[in-house]
Amino acid sequence: MTTDKTYLAGIDIGGTSIKLGLFTTEKENVAVWQIPTSTADGGRAIARDVAGAIEEKLNTLGIEKDSLAGAGAGAPGYVRPDDGVVTKAVNIGWEEYPLAQALTEALERPVFVQNDANLAAAGEAWRGAAAGIDDVICITIGTGVGAGLLVNGEIIAGRRGTAGEIGHLTVEPDGRRCNCGRYGCLEQYASATAVKEIAAEALTHYPDSTLHQAEALTAAVIYQEAAAGDVLAQQVVDQAAAYLGLALGNLATALNPERILIGGGVSAAGDTLMVPLAEQFERFALDEAAGAVQFSIAKLGNEAGISGAAWLAAKRLGFL
Amino acid sequence: MTTDKTYLAGIDIGGTSIKLGLFTTEKENVAVWQIPTSTADGGRAIARDVAGAIEEKLNTLGIEKDSLAGAGAGAPGYVRPDDGVVTKAVNIGWEEYPLAQALTEALERPVFVQNDANLAAAGEAWRGAAAGIDDVICITIGTGVGAGLLVNGEIIAGRRGTAGEIGHLTVEPDGRRCNCGRYGCLEQYASATAVKEIAAEALTHYPDSTLHQAEALTAAVIYQEAAAGDVLAQQVVDQAAAYLGLALGNLATALNPERILIGGGVSAAGDTLMVPLAEQFERFALDEAAGAVQFSIAKLGNEAGISGAAWLAAKRLGFL
Repeated sequence: MTTDKTYLAGIDIGGTSIKLGLFTTEKENVAVWQIPTSTADGGRAIARDVAGAIEEKLNTLGIEKDSLAGAGAGAPGYVRPDDGVVTKAVNIGWEEYPLAQALTEALERPVFVQNDANLAAAGEAWRGAAAGIDDVICITIGTGVGAGLLVNGEIIAGRRGTAGEIGHLTVEPDGRRCNCGRYGCLEQYASATAVKEIAAEALTHYPDSTLHQAEALTAAVIYQEAAAGDVLAQQVVDQAAAYLGLALGNLATALNPERILIGGGVSAAGDTLMVPLAEQFERFALDEAAGAVQFSIAKLGNEAGISGAAWLAAKRLGFL
Repeated sequence: MTTDKTYLAGIDIGGTSIKLGLFTTEKENVAVWQIPTSTADGGRAIARDVAGAIEEKLNTLGIEKDSLAGAGAGAPGYVRPDDGVVTKAVNIGWEEYPLAQALTEALERPVFVQNDANLAAAGEAWRGAAAGIDDVICITIGTGVGAGLLVNGEIIAGRRGTAGEIGHLTVEPDGRRCNCGRYGCLEQYASATAVKEIAAEALTHYPDSTLHQAEALTAAVIYQEAAAGDVLAQQVVDQAAAYLGLALGNLATALNPERILIGGGVSAAGDTLMVPLAEQFERFALDEAAGAVQFSIAKLGNEAGISGAAWLAAKRLGFL
């Protein structure tokens, strides 16, 4: 097959698997697949693995490598915005690792690197739930809480690439201890992990709670029982919503975004989370800012990261 | 005098006076002056007054009007970023007023409009305490608390131009009532007005406080007595510093800036504010973000606004 289309690869590096995607410069997705993450040799095998997987896929699809203009990659850690060096990615073992350079050499194409949460936000703004919208906060609530911030259609990476770490906004001074070493971080109240821990700690005080019947106490079960009327589950969910509303309300006052997207596993809770969250958000955000925002559920799921990575390449290579 | 320099005017519109400046495209300041703000005719006289004042000054300086490339203007309210319409400026009486268009017609040059606090931040980043720095939070603490946020060298205006209103970040849910209608806004603890009110409310409980001897209870006196060891004054200042530290710490976690500037009347308190503020900031900001930031006192004072306005014109007209 010959083609006159130009392709971009999207790479989303996680602790256990690496998601890969091929896109045209017209946002069309032509392939999505994944490979395991090899943490061998301090993560130094990854660049070669990724390049090999992309070349193999191009081959299979009959796309000439000359049609591949470049790639973007999301890394699970702090990425220095100017040179794509991963300053710290605990899950992989990278520290001051020149990922952009390693991928560029292995793939023989320009590869641009950013933090994975930032790219997920950009992916949703390129071809997802915030398509065409320039001022977006995309919060991901799962094991942890993270976010990507888009202003004027550009990612806010920050001076050292740590912008968007809103799981570590202090929402309760002297509150629950966080593994970042500080106290009262949003993540300690609103993540799936925290919701589970808080419910488990309180369970003995609520002998009638339906949570006692759960086979395994998970955030999904807690949200489900909250919807069914269990008092303890409702309290835990309301607390999570209040702190999320405080954090997002303050971010909206500061940034005046047009769209706030909720993604990650917890977003499956739907209205059980969104209704109290919207109420708390209105309470805490400046009226003018609250009035400008629409909430949506993120829709690209696992493909947000690879989409945003392809967007980054498209942007840097001048296709956007 | 003939000249081959190109000039830009900076306009900073306040409730009682309008500050004006002429700058070369090389950042050189050639004139600073001011005229009274006429709120006659719902603020509709302002554009003509400003244009007249600028033309007169050019005449006096022997600069031909052809050398004036354009102007920027800061307005004390919400400014829609795309068309320079002031959606609300309570002090002037503007509502949905097309200020950019009115000034452009009166001056017969392109004029760009932004919120005044945003332009003050840009001014400090163009030729002040953050010269050459792209990621800046510039907070102004006076009668109220406001800020301008710069990311990648661009102002964050937000969807409806209300970004940077950090005086209305909620720092104490259900705390002191704010004139925005909500509770616990930063401004209600950290502004000069709030510091004065809080001290006045507590004064009867502190019969030995040196604040009883003050001729007039002002924020300046309170900071001065805090430095001299008065217990009440210290408590009020420590509380202001704690809430400022919380708000700025959270903003730094979200945005990862390189510089935080403190401006406005209260910045004259120097170390009496800065030492406890830095301590509280370290307590609340994510380590990686705290480590990237340097605090400074803003240095352009009254000229920050006109400098930022000239910067805006320089930027939009392609001189930067």
